Amino acid sequence: MASPYSILFEPVKIGPVTAKNRFYQVPHCTGLGYLRPRADAATRAIKAEGGWGVVSNQETEIHPTSDLSPCPEHRLWDEHDIPALRLMTDAVHEHGALAAIELVHNGYHASNQATRAPILAPSDTTAHSVGPRQARAMDKSDIRALRQWHRAAARRAKQAGFDIVYVYAGHRMTLPQHFLLPSCNDRMDEYGGSLENRARLLRELLQDTKEEVGETCAVALRFAVDEMMGADGMQASEEGRAIVEHLAELPDLWDVNVSDWANDSATSRFAPNEGYQNSYIDFVKQITSKPVVAVGRFTSADAMVSLVKKGIVDFIGAARPSIADPFLPAKIQEGRIEEIRECIGCNICVSSDNLAIPIRCTQNPTMGEEWRRGWHPEKIEPKGQEEAALVVGAGPAGLECAMQLARRGYHVTLAEASAVLGGRAHLEAGLPGLTAWRRVADHRIYDLQQRGNVDIFRESSLSADEVIELGIPNVFVATGAKWRRDGIGRHSRSPLPLPENFPVLTPDDIMQGIIPPPGRVLIYDDDQIYLAGVLAEKLCELGHEVTFVTPASIVSPWTETTLEQARIQTGLINLGVQIETGQTLSSVGSEGGVCVCTYSGREKTIPCSSLLLVTEKIRNTDLFNALSQRQAKGTASLQTLELIGDASQPGLIADAVYGGHMAARYFEADPSAKEQAYYRRELIELETEV
Amino acid sequence: MASPYSILFEPVKIGPVTAKNRFYQVPHCTGLGYLRPRADAATRAIKAEGGWGVVSNQETEIHPTSDLSPCPEHRLWDEHDIPALRLMTDAVHEHGALAAIELVHNGYHASNQATRAPILAPSDTTAHSVGPRQARAMDKSDIRALRQWHRAAARRAKQAGFDIVYVYAGHRMTLPQHFLLPSCNDRMDEYGGSLENRARLLRELLQDTKEEVGETCAVALRFAVDEMMGADGMQASEEGRAIVEHLAELPDLWDVNVSDWANDSATSRFAPNEGYQNSYIDFVKQITSKPVVAVGRFTSADAMVSLVKKGIVDFIGAARPSIADPFLPAKIQEGRIEEIRECIGCNICVSSDNLAIPIRCTQNPTMGEEWRRGWHPEKIEPKGQEEAALVVGAGPAGLECAMQLARRGYHVTLAEASAVLGGRAHLEAGLPGLTAWRRVADHRIYDLQQRGNVDIFRESSLSADEVIELGIPNVFVATGAKWRRDGIGRHSRSPLPLPENFPVLTPDDIMQGIIPPPGRVLIYDDDQIYLAGVLAEKLCELGHEVTFVTPASIVSPWTETTLEQARIQTGLINLGVQIETGQTLSSVGSEGGVCVCTYSGREKTIPCSSLLLVTEKIRNTDLFNALSQRQAKGTASLQTLELIGDASQPGLIADAVYGGHMAARYFEADPSAKEQAYYRRELIELETEV
Repeated sequence: MASPYSILFEPVKIGPVTAKNRFYQVPHCTGLGYLRPRADAATRAIKAEGGWGVVSNQETEIHPTSDLSPCPEHRLWDEHDIPALRLMTDAVHEHGALAAIELVHNGYHASNQATRAPILAPSDTTAHSVGPRQARAMDKSDIRALRQWHRAAARRAKQAGFDIVYVYAGHRMTLPQHFLLPSCNDRMDEYGGSLENRARLLRELLQDTKEEVGETCAVALRFAVDEMMGADGMQASEEGRAIVEHLAELPDLWDVNVSDWANDSATSRFAPNEGYQNSYIDFVKQITSKPVVAVGRFTSADAMVSLVKKGIVDFIGAARPSIADPFLPAKIQEGRIEEIRECIGCNICVSSDNLAIPIRCTQNPTMGEEWRRGWHPEKIEPKGQEEAALVVGAGPAGLECAMQLARRGYHVTLAEASAVLGGRAHLEAGLPGLTAWRRVADHRIYDLQQRGNVDIFRESSLSADEVIELGIPNVFVATGAKWRRDGIGRHSRSPLPLPENFPVLTPDDIMQGIIPPPGRVLIYDDDQIYLAGVLAEKLCELGHEVTFVTPASIVSPWTETTLEQARIQTGLINLGVQIETGQTLSSVGSEGGVCVCTYSGREKTIPCSSLLLVTEKIRNTDLFNALSQRQAKGTASLQTLELIGDASQPGLIADAVYGGHMAARYFEADPSAKEQAYYRRELIELETEV
Repeated sequence: MASPYSILFEPVKIGPVTAKNRFYQVPHCTGLGYLRPRADAATRAIKAEGGWGVVSNQETEIHPTSDLSPCPEHRLWDEHDIPALRLMTDAVHEHGALAAIELVHNGYHASNQATRAPILAPSDTTAHSVGPRQARAMDKSDIRALRQWHRAAARRAKQAGFDIVYVYAGHRMTLPQHFLLPSCNDRMDEYGGSLENRARLLRELLQDTKEEVGETCAVALRFAVDEMMGADGMQASEEGRAIVEHLAELPDLWDVNVSDWANDSATSRFAPNEGYQNSYIDFVKQITSKPVVAVGRFTSADAMVSLVKKGIVDFIGAARPSIADPFLPAKIQEGRIEEIRECIGCNICVSSDNLAIPIRCTQNPTMGEEWRRGWHPEKIEPKGQEEAALVVGAGPAGLECAMQLARRGYHVTLAEASAVLGGRAHLEAGLPGLTAWRRVADHRIYDLQQRGNVDIFRESSLSADEVIELGIPNVFVATGAKWRRDGIGRHSRSPLPLPENFPVLTPDDIMQGIIPPPGRVLIYDDDQIYLAGVLAEKLCELGHEVTFVTPASIVSPWTETTLEQARIQTGLINLGVQIETGQTLSSVGSEGGVCVCTYSGREKTIPCSSLLLVTEKIRNTDLFNALSQRQAKGTASLQTLELIGDASQPGLIADAVYGGHMAARYFEADPSAKEQAYYRRELIELETEV
């Protein structure tokens, strides 16, 4: 190949197996796992089809003492779990990729809430999650048993058809890592104390696994070289390196990253650049002759080539970029670089796993829907009888809907009221830390611009009359939503009493460049998702004093699911934001906002000279309602009139993209098809008992 | 029958069906549901076997727009869900009970996280849970569809064999109730405004259900008469009563309670007396001629008789008392009142559902284990070859183990070091609000005292020598755990630096009557479960000033799972406790405790003259270790030596009881039986696709 990227498509040997290229989907959770094995297999199959040389599954519990219930990871407790995993390996192999399995014992990270089995750890300790049961120090017989469980799981992994079998010591979530860390291990025996002792269990598991399956399967080690806690934790320059030296040639592959999960899967808000782990892991290849894979939200093919050429990695590891675009390798190979749907680093995928629900992606609305809805990220049904469609509004839903309709072959007219395409994806991307979210708009605008069957009109606010005059029979209304200005939200269903002329702003105002008057701004966050925290940062940047009031007990509680909450609250404290949690705002008087303690009902007044209300959204349905009324009256005869995105149901950008995609997919389909897919689910088997 | 309780065993007609007696297990969640249908059926079957005339299932989603994922309630989305439910009805009918199903549409309480279907509500609103998707006001076609879904579900419920079909308007969790409440419904059409309009949907659902299945099935209405918010919500004396009047004769049965769930399932800590709902629901029978069921943690047979005789209810409703003792009706019928295992009102059962894991019970360790481990609350395998056992320690684990061993027929010697039996069940029951927890000890002590094969020794601390001298070959060591005094816990693995002679107390001290010196006590809660909050209350009662410091963002965060958190924090605020959240304690100096913000790392000093550390427990294993060493050296030859309860793994009282039960069950069993049951699980069906 003369391609500048040909180095990425070289085969690479991993122990006894060979990957066809350097694209390596490292293990990542899907929220599908053992509860939705068909869906999980279909998700992995799409990655293989998209060109990834290695496709890994997710952490796979090896025993009932590693029970992460209610989160559905994968399981390989015994032979009954093999058929569900076989679905994946067969599907992955069909596309010429290697299938990897991440065996795990989660130690005291697992609370064993369903199995009620003992919680195991190197030393007696409180368990990782806030729960009542403590973990018990493993005795020698526990360690022997663990090794047997791991061996048995490796054997079954091979039976299930996996090519690469992991030993997993990372994310502060696994027993071999707990043994490594002095903060978890104060044992006095040969498994505690010196580094050699603390690494003993990891070495034994690697040796055991090689003995069991090493002739035909590669044995990979996923290892966190640094805890990003400075001297309070393991550091890449100290023990992280020492452990790589100690075990250098033992695994067939080193999959290296940083710990904990929030550091490894840092969002673009806090780790804006791809390759943010490079400085931690770049020493590894100097120590081992075995191939190395690392991650860092890589989406740039040039950066990938450079990483390989510089000898930092052998494989380009990816979790999130492979979710946003399963066809990333194929697009690079085929020189379709501009078509890559780049990960925006928002961690909606991560939130799904934390919520124990199927994986979602802002950029890729088909993610997690490959089996249930039969959606493919690159393929869509060609158009039917209809010829043309009008999409009103070029926010996330409108752009996605227009793009998919255009792909289907309709003539698409896209009308946007403002001068800029992108809607909230454009506006929110202007806020601190969210620049990468712009990719949601950019990808779709670029795609639309390449097509001959799309007309885009900016500054084209349309009335119902104008829509009807256009004469396009199929209309998708994506007019978005606006933030309420009356204080109605989660904690109050009646408008906030306000003095006349008191300056009240909404997030829309700030994003449109309206600046609060001088003095302290009281941000009232009754939304509790992410936006109020970002706006607080924005107002500080603009030089305002800010008090952040919320009925929640922490700032932006929903961002715990995206692993960002601690960083957000720390950031606001460091910017000097006054934080008042557990308070509802009941009125505003001349002294400021009157806040009521959610527990005691006690009032206090918080001085402020303006108010920014982040509470709830109102759907912009005027156009839709006007068109509906005409349809009802018979003064319009549209074939299709559909409300999509935030105008239909306010939510995340991911929800809006999904809504736009859904509308385009089911346009001209059997009317029951969309509804039927809601019912598609995987059920418990009732015939044979385990 | 000449029994004073015979009135409780009269048959009662409910529409077209007849319950054999007045014992009515109202719907309650199990955390088993559609993910564990065999386990769920087995749990319900035990209730039927125990004599309940009606056994209900749990809320059963009628459509993908009512998707409570990841919580596994039940489902009846379509015909594919019938077989799983049929397991329950068959099992319940086998014992002569009626089977009831609680059909539900959860409206905006359901976030539809797995299905991604629209979230439905009477009016546009933020959804109930903190999540990014808002709910959409239902239009007329949505309401028509809802009625069809409910009709179809009722039909399928009948097909699945249910005798009673619920319409559910309670707990602020269901759509018909959302329509009823002005705080959720600001509609301008015939479904909003007047009470008649707001009740329209509920009336329609009742009529629809009667039409569909009313000839053979009873149609029950579960209705919350009061929101316990005073004039801010629905009140039994106002609209609650008006709705009962409005629909009086429409349902075949009124199942009435209070809203929300935290009020209905109030713990004994906050609603100490049984019948705590009586004053809200006692008007209902005056209005309707249809039978009425109500709940209130009823465990006293005399109180039950009185309730029926006074004409307050026709049925004694129970959720939690039926979990603690599925055989409560049988025991009353057979005059075995003293054998009833009374609910302690701790809400461990509720916590399981909130955690989306199988149901647990403090009093009944077999709850949720009927299928997986084949445990029966009243039956246990008779003894094998061995004759005698020694149990050391009469806390929850020791008492349960001794009681079950005695039931099996062994000669049991129970040795307790202190003068009082009960261990922590006794000690914690002495703290504010936890009196009912004493029942854990009382039930078991009473049982042991009835038996001829049990010797109980108080004030009998045993050394290893003494144990061996006793010559009992089977020894169960239940020596418990003590709270750490060094500050090691969740947030610190190294001891807390303390000035010499600084008064440091542990929960054990307080429970043993040691009182802190005068002045402010700093309680440091790094445990985060429930105890620190209770101790704060205790110290206030004793007249101390208290500052409550915790790294958590709220007081006792784990008690969110038991629905107590808001009440606990409110109570402490009202007692004048200073609460410092988001703080770790790093040292104590002459000025007080030095606390570090978990976000910013900033230090502040909190004045105090003593410290109460609630951090982590240390297992009391000295006796076990000494015996183990002798076994290893051959200077002892015990047949059995087993560590149980908190001494094996500190946890809840429920965990200790479970551990004691487990040891007694598997004594002399096939050594692999205990381990094998950990693997028992229900798997996804892989053959036929839905």
